[in-house]
Amino acid sequence: MAIGEFDLIATYFTHRYPQRDDVDIGVGDDGAVLKIPPNSELVVVTDTMVEGVHFDQQTPARAIGHKIVAVNLSDLAAMGAEPAWISLALTLPTVDHDWLTGFTHGLREICDYYQCQLVGGDTTRGPLTITVTAHGLVPTGKALRRNGAKPGDWIYVSGTLGDAGLALAASQQQHKLSPDYQRRLNERLFFPSPRVALGQSLRGIASSAIDVSDGLLADLGHILSASQVGARIDVDELPLSLALTESLSETDAYKYALTSGDDYELLFTVPEAQRGLFDTVIAHAAHKPVCIGRVTNEVEVVQLLYAGEPWSMPTDVALGFDHFKKPTSETEPEL
Amino acid sequence: MAIGEFDLIATYFTHRYPQRDDVDIGVGDDGAVLKIPPNSELVVVTDTMVEGVHFDQQTPARAIGHKIVAVNLSDLAAMGAEPAWISLALTLPTVDHDWLTGFTHGLREICDYYQCQLVGGDTTRGPLTITVTAHGLVPTGKALRRNGAKPGDWIYVSGTLGDAGLALAASQQQHKLSPDYQRRLNERLFFPSPRVALGQSLRGIASSAIDVSDGLLADLGHILSASQVGARIDVDELPLSLALTESLSETDAYKYALTSGDDYELLFTVPEAQRGLFDTVIAHAAHKPVCIGRVTNEVEVVQLLYAGEPWSMPTDVALGFDHFKKPTSETEPEL
Repeated sequence: MAIGEFDLIATYFTHRYPQRDDVDIGVGDDGAVLKIPPNSELVVVTDTMVEGVHFDQQTPARAIGHKIVAVNLSDLAAMGAEPAWISLALTLPTVDHDWLTGFTHGLREICDYYQCQLVGGDTTRGPLTITVTAHGLVPTGKALRRNGAKPGDWIYVSGTLGDAGLALAASQQQHKLSPDYQRRLNERLFFPSPRVALGQSLRGIASSAIDVSDGLLADLGHILSASQVGARIDVDELPLSLALTESLSETDAYKYALTSGDDYELLFTVPEAQRGLFDTVIAHAAHKPVCIGRVTNEVEVVQLLYAGEPWSMPTDVALGFDHFKKPTSETEPEL
Repeated sequence: MAIGEFDLIATYFTHRYPQRDDVDIGVGDDGAVLKIPPNSELVVVTDTMVEGVHFDQQTPARAIGHKIVAVNLSDLAAMGAEPAWISLALTLPTVDHDWLTGFTHGLREICDYYQCQLVGGDTTRGPLTITVTAHGLVPTGKALRRNGAKPGDWIYVSGTLGDAGLALAASQQQHKLSPDYQRRLNERLFFPSPRVALGQSLRGIASSAIDVSDGLLADLGHILSASQVGARIDVDELPLSLALTESLSETDAYKYALTSGDDYELLFTVPEAQRGLFDTVIAHAAHKPVCIGRVTNEVEVVQLLYAGEPWSMPTDVALGFDHFKKPTSETEPEL
């Protein structure tokens, strides 16, 4: 069925999205007009997902709609920002109503949950590519950065690592999982939960923060480089899911936890002096962050320990996901 | 040559862009952190360009870099906003240094000219697709909208129409142009000038505004629909370039001026009561807007006149560009 761009926007992207009071003009003009509250700064993040690279034809459309928003909100969380508005650039090879219904279902669910309004975008024809730009708000001067970690700060991660990576590897037949574990891990891969509330509660407490999208060591590396510090990581303290530990050898489990991406947990550092306040803030959290190590003064050096002794990672490991360098799967050849 | 995503960003997207004082955190963290001045609203626009749809392999990379920013700034101009920051989502099939050098050259030139800072984005691998989200500022309540046109308002356009459409048609061998005209018209197609200063000067004067991206009649239609009014257009008042009038029959010239897109002129309405102020404001403008008709009370009806008499457009005409309905070239088949 052929429909026009304006019909498409009217059908799928105008109705039944959250409506916020701070949106002066939303979808339907040349641009959105948005009110920023006083004493706030604007935080802007952008992420793209491409068919054949970030998902394949088997990925449910609802998962794609969820995930493209979730990965953006995860970046906002890593900045300590509160989500407010998103723009959607959607490039479609055909107008597939089943796909669009599933996609907008996923998009709307997560927008509803976080009261994030779709305020504009662009629809074009071409290979399936989705870019979301998300806008959040943070009290002036309170954004979390990557460059504030200091030697002696404690390193935390907000939840289990390696789950999404194992789900992807299993879907590519690299591992065999029980149906129940496959289902649980697919949920982590397809419907990641951005740590939005935690990110906001870390304002004024964490000295640095990032979200784990490329893998723990890769993303830790960004903090170490920006802060000009090093880290000691206790691999036996890494939070691991039962699905991961029951499906893999101990070494493989650490390998996934340290290097596979797409988990969207927060990785952050807390100074010793803020630790009491931090414990108070997270006392009632549903998912408690886990302390996995400490910041050192050896610039950009990561020391891995197991039971307090130096530990080496197996050498067949690719460190984190980089679109233009290190292939992590058959769909991501080296350029 | 294989380089990593982070090297790519460092090489092409970090240095030598305009640096604004209102950027608290720019490229290199999870998100950008931006200061909004008091009594201002944020305006957000998004546009995507896809290889094979919006440009082809012959299009100079520098033109693509210019145009993806220009079309976004044109949307900001149509809202009366002042450009401030852009985010870039760039999906590349390969890392082609010549292409990237040309692309960033075009991107940087226009960003420099408008003092617009690149504050973030995402680079991914996949079919060549470029999305820019541009952010502008407008005094609170002063944004130009589509829905304020009233019967009796005068209709203006900011410059010549049909030029980009003719350049495209000629490149597809539908018309033969002299080399000089082809060069001049290509300049309009490849390096459109967003009417940024004019858009800002229309705040408080124009009752509605839009930019001509899909074609005059199509974009006028958006104003008429949003404002629930009609229009009378004097086709013999349409501003036409010498390159257009010398290359086409009179009828074909009007056809291009009325229906072809990509000119990025502003189309706007001015109430009779604001006309004196408007004339004062544009008295010293380099390019003077031209009055081409008047708003009527016949909802969504467009009356075309020539020398005051009803005029009909040739029937072989497609009205404006719609990615998902009306094919305007071989690269845009119907879905």
